[in-house]
Amino acid sequence: MSTPDRLFKLRSHMATLGVDAFIITSADPHLSEYPSSHWKFREWISGFTGSAGTVVVTNEEAGLWTDSRYFLQAEQQLEDSGIDLFKMGNEGVPDYKEWLTQKLNTGAVVGVNGKTMTVNELRQLHRMLKKADIRLDAKLFIEDDIWEGRPLIPDDGIFELGVEHTGLSRAEKIEMVRRQMKAQGATHYIISTLDEVAWLLNFRGQDVQYNPVFHAYIVISHNHVNVFIDPHKLTSTIGKQLSEENIKIFIYKDFYNFIKDIPPLGKVIVDPNRTNSTIFSFLPQQSTKIESTSIVTNLKAQKNNVEVENFRTAMVKDGVAMVKFLYWLDNTIGKETITEYSAALKLSAFRAEQPNYHGDSFNTISGYAGNGAIVHYAVQEESAATLEPKGLYLIDSGGQYSEGTTDITRTIALGPLTDEEKTDFTLVLKGNIGLDRAVFPTGTRGVHLDILARQAMWQHGINYGHGTGHGIGHFLCVHEGPQSIRPQDNGVEIKEGMISSNEPGIYKAAKHGVRLENLILTVLDKETEFGTFLKFETLTLCPIDTRAIQLELLSEQEKEWLNNYHQKVYERVSPFLTKEEKEWLKKYTAAI
Amino acid sequence: MSTPDRLFKLRSHMATLGVDAFIITSADPHLSEYPSSHWKFREWISGFTGSAGTVVVTNEEAGLWTDSRYFLQAEQQLEDSGIDLFKMGNEGVPDYKEWLTQKLNTGAVVGVNGKTMTVNELRQLHRMLKKADIRLDAKLFIEDDIWEGRPLIPDDGIFELGVEHTGLSRAEKIEMVRRQMKAQGATHYIISTLDEVAWLLNFRGQDVQYNPVFHAYIVISHNHVNVFIDPHKLTSTIGKQLSEENIKIFIYKDFYNFIKDIPPLGKVIVDPNRTNSTIFSFLPQQSTKIESTSIVTNLKAQKNNVEVENFRTAMVKDGVAMVKFLYWLDNTIGKETITEYSAALKLSAFRAEQPNYHGDSFNTISGYAGNGAIVHYAVQEESAATLEPKGLYLIDSGGQYSEGTTDITRTIALGPLTDEEKTDFTLVLKGNIGLDRAVFPTGTRGVHLDILARQAMWQHGINYGHGTGHGIGHFLCVHEGPQSIRPQDNGVEIKEGMISSNEPGIYKAAKHGVRLENLILTVLDKETEFGTFLKFETLTLCPIDTRAIQLELLSEQEKEWLNNYHQKVYERVSPFLTKEEKEWLKKYTAAI
Repeated sequence: MSTPDRLFKLRSHMATLGVDAFIITSADPHLSEYPSSHWKFREWISGFTGSAGTVVVTNEEAGLWTDSRYFLQAEQQLEDSGIDLFKMGNEGVPDYKEWLTQKLNTGAVVGVNGKTMTVNELRQLHRMLKKADIRLDAKLFIEDDIWEGRPLIPDDGIFELGVEHTGLSRAEKIEMVRRQMKAQGATHYIISTLDEVAWLLNFRGQDVQYNPVFHAYIVISHNHVNVFIDPHKLTSTIGKQLSEENIKIFIYKDFYNFIKDIPPLGKVIVDPNRTNSTIFSFLPQQSTKIESTSIVTNLKAQKNNVEVENFRTAMVKDGVAMVKFLYWLDNTIGKETITEYSAALKLSAFRAEQPNYHGDSFNTISGYAGNGAIVHYAVQEESAATLEPKGLYLIDSGGQYSEGTTDITRTIALGPLTDEEKTDFTLVLKGNIGLDRAVFPTGTRGVHLDILARQAMWQHGINYGHGTGHGIGHFLCVHEGPQSIRPQDNGVEIKEGMISSNEPGIYKAAKHGVRLENLILTVLDKETEFGTFLKFETLTLCPIDTRAIQLELLSEQEKEWLNNYHQKVYERVSPFLTKEEKEWLKKYTAAI
Repeated sequence: MSTPDRLFKLRSHMATLGVDAFIITSADPHLSEYPSSHWKFREWISGFTGSAGTVVVTNEEAGLWTDSRYFLQAEQQLEDSGIDLFKMGNEGVPDYKEWLTQKLNTGAVVGVNGKTMTVNELRQLHRMLKKADIRLDAKLFIEDDIWEGRPLIPDDGIFELGVEHTGLSRAEKIEMVRRQMKAQGATHYIISTLDEVAWLLNFRGQDVQYNPVFHAYIVISHNHVNVFIDPHKLTSTIGKQLSEENIKIFIYKDFYNFIKDIPPLGKVIVDPNRTNSTIFSFLPQQSTKIESTSIVTNLKAQKNNVEVENFRTAMVKDGVAMVKFLYWLDNTIGKETITEYSAALKLSAFRAEQPNYHGDSFNTISGYAGNGAIVHYAVQEESAATLEPKGLYLIDSGGQYSEGTTDITRTIALGPLTDEEKTDFTLVLKGNIGLDRAVFPTGTRGVHLDILARQAMWQHGINYGHGTGHGIGHFLCVHEGPQSIRPQDNGVEIKEGMISSNEPGIYKAAKHGVRLENLILTVLDKETEFGTFLKFETLTLCPIDTRAIQLELLSEQEKEWLNNYHQKVYERVSPFLTKEEKEWLKKYTAAI
């Protein structure tokens, strides 16, 4: 079936339902970063395979809204589809909500599957449409009716992550959650994001790429833990174990009927940014909704000591893989053909040699020269550039180990550099060190710290458009909340035990991209008469290319930081290297 | 009449009105920092003369809520008054709203004069009382009925500030305001804060101490500018001039009746943080209220080139007065008795020697040793400490000149210092330089920049509890909005032409206080492919005591900053000094 055929089918169905426009987002009901193919209805209807994009279909027209990283791909994939491309962020391009209010008449009806929008997203959409006197129906699960050959939800098994990795048993975690439910006066708490489910149950899965999660919902009350999951996923051992722990298993699909039956006097915690709107609308109308950040989101952000120790192990493994890769690159460049694509494969192969490796934590960004300036560059085998022995090469990658998730970016001098490349590299390094060296009182938020990574490049009139730091999961999602180090304030304090990325960058279109990313752990610095002060400890163990540094731009303190860091990297990583690699690392990490 | 007698009178009147509690704030209807005595009802009812405090009276009890700087004074002044002191900020002390909900029964009525609260303050009070089922009556102007011997509103004259000082004529300013009214779709705009009135009309007055303002309201529509003012304040020349400019004069008291008669279809701009709640409630109910930051607040924050040039002149004058003071202090300490009080008087006298001086811009904070650690220390003649030739002396002061308002803090080594004093002084200096050297893209807010003034002291586990920077008026209020450099985000961008204070500090109870405050102007740094970048230019011209610096804590860049600054100070200020003062300044500003 072609895209026009599919649109025809959708429009016929819309006519039956009396709907004038339909919105199809890329979200799944768990609001996952990587939805399984069962939920990729937007991909099915449009033929567009990018990770981000929204399709809106009216009786006459259809559009896809996506961002700059997918403009080229979308143009190709939408050819002759009957769907227009709306390039988000380009001047004069309306967002799909504005577009809808322009195209539709007063009294029109817009449909959407409420499971593919958060509570807050749906509220915003509703407000905007209401102003234009357009009605919104968010209970249209249209894909269930028209999607032929829809893939099933994966029924791959789950496996337990032991207390030696998690630091806390399921029972202990449930107890912590219930304490917080009581503090908030809640009778029920709904968990619908897959990494929260996995963290609480100490299970991991393999339903999607990059994130070791599995499809399930949880409803916790004071006396019950109800898990909604495909029973095929459970081994008999796990099933027995859960039953002994008094954790009840329900069929995955029964979740929505179950929450309808929560007692009307119930007080239910719902995170409006982490819960799909259908869940909210299925709760009994009389029940009290306590809207607050999901308890597990906050609990899992502050890693416990066992998790932190595991992270340290994962960092050694990841550092070994990275150093082997850098050694290989340094000795191969200019001798054999290396492309952005083959380099990324090589790095994954080095990671795969490490014990307890479960795959990469995201699609490696591997960009040479001007491609390094494309922030979300997704390299493809056919179009990958060949690395040459000059200029800068940016590689942003990560691994999933039982001990933790990693995320690291290094920018490497493949040969001679221009002064501009060296200056930009050094300004990024100064930013990275600036944030890493921060000491700050409790209560400090990401919005306060962000400038430390930017002030050096701002002096040179340079800036970057992305955030400086995100949280990272413990053998879970590479991007997790709630903390965020960026100019936009999300109100979340940086707390002890949080692990965040530190990734300033400089991007010069068609020239080069520089990013240096380490993971940093928040630890106690000191207690004084002025309060409690925190600082960061760098967890990532991988050298920084000193050949790309403009030495005169570094202060004595910054040089000292780099030399100390390199000494630590050599000490921790070298025991796992060959003699040749070790010698190479010794030189690569020599004091400046 | 004693305080108990006054309370008795108030309670009798409350009984007549059927009110169970009455709230008396320290605000006037213009929400001034310095209300005239006509509005000091809280002072009359309680005998407490501090600038900040709220009295709440029930039938049985009465309380005064004030902050730590007034604890001692309030204790003395409330003795035998029948009013209890509630020390705000102390643990376990409820705020007056909580206290009211504890003391009153469901169905009770609380009264307040709505003119003494902003729209937003009243809303918050209303919400809190409503939760406890307590009714709020904000239309009780009880002081009009029971205050015998109430002082009149001052009828002192006003004077015009010429375009050579203001840069823009009244007509030009009114035109700018009307353009913004149109952009917001407004038919009317109400100006009730006195510095906004003075700025728009290019008049200054002398109704209160420290701020050159006068009592008036303005209502602007597309065709009319209506000024509500005591006609005694206007000379016949000014009256004629305004009439020629088609600006209508009304009696001050007629303002509230006038706004009742705004057409019901009117769209009125009201700033809910800068307008008293009675104004809001007097507007016709059917009229549309556009709640946004007052237009003049934003316009006057970005100083025009003429204002900036005038500020530079004011800074030379203020620098000359400060240097003469520092010279005198350096040559007198240890020889004659100097107290915190006499030193402050001496500095005012030096300022008074400068042409176009109109008085101090606030009550000088003059604190020796431990008194310097009391952030809002108000020195009194009787209790002033004597300066000794050792330790640190903090003086925070400012002047009103026709050319601009100044605000400066210097901390001075009166003799030998301890290592701790030197370290703290140097950390504060590093903070001051850190913020001063900032370069930042447009869109940056105070919340982003604040850390630059704190990161050096945070490394040492030290912090301060106040903001780092506030706006300052052009021959107006020493504290003005909307910008603010502090950890709390108020959403306001730091824009070109804004003048802010830069005043980090360290306060060690019973030991010493250090604060170094300069005024900084936001100017263009550069335009690049990454956007427009701004930076600061230091306006204040007064040396920093290098004898108090721990040199090894300063970076080369910081030393260079200080040497450049001192060279500029010497060049600009020395032409106005005696030979002896000049020689002294040469040494005092010698390169480090």
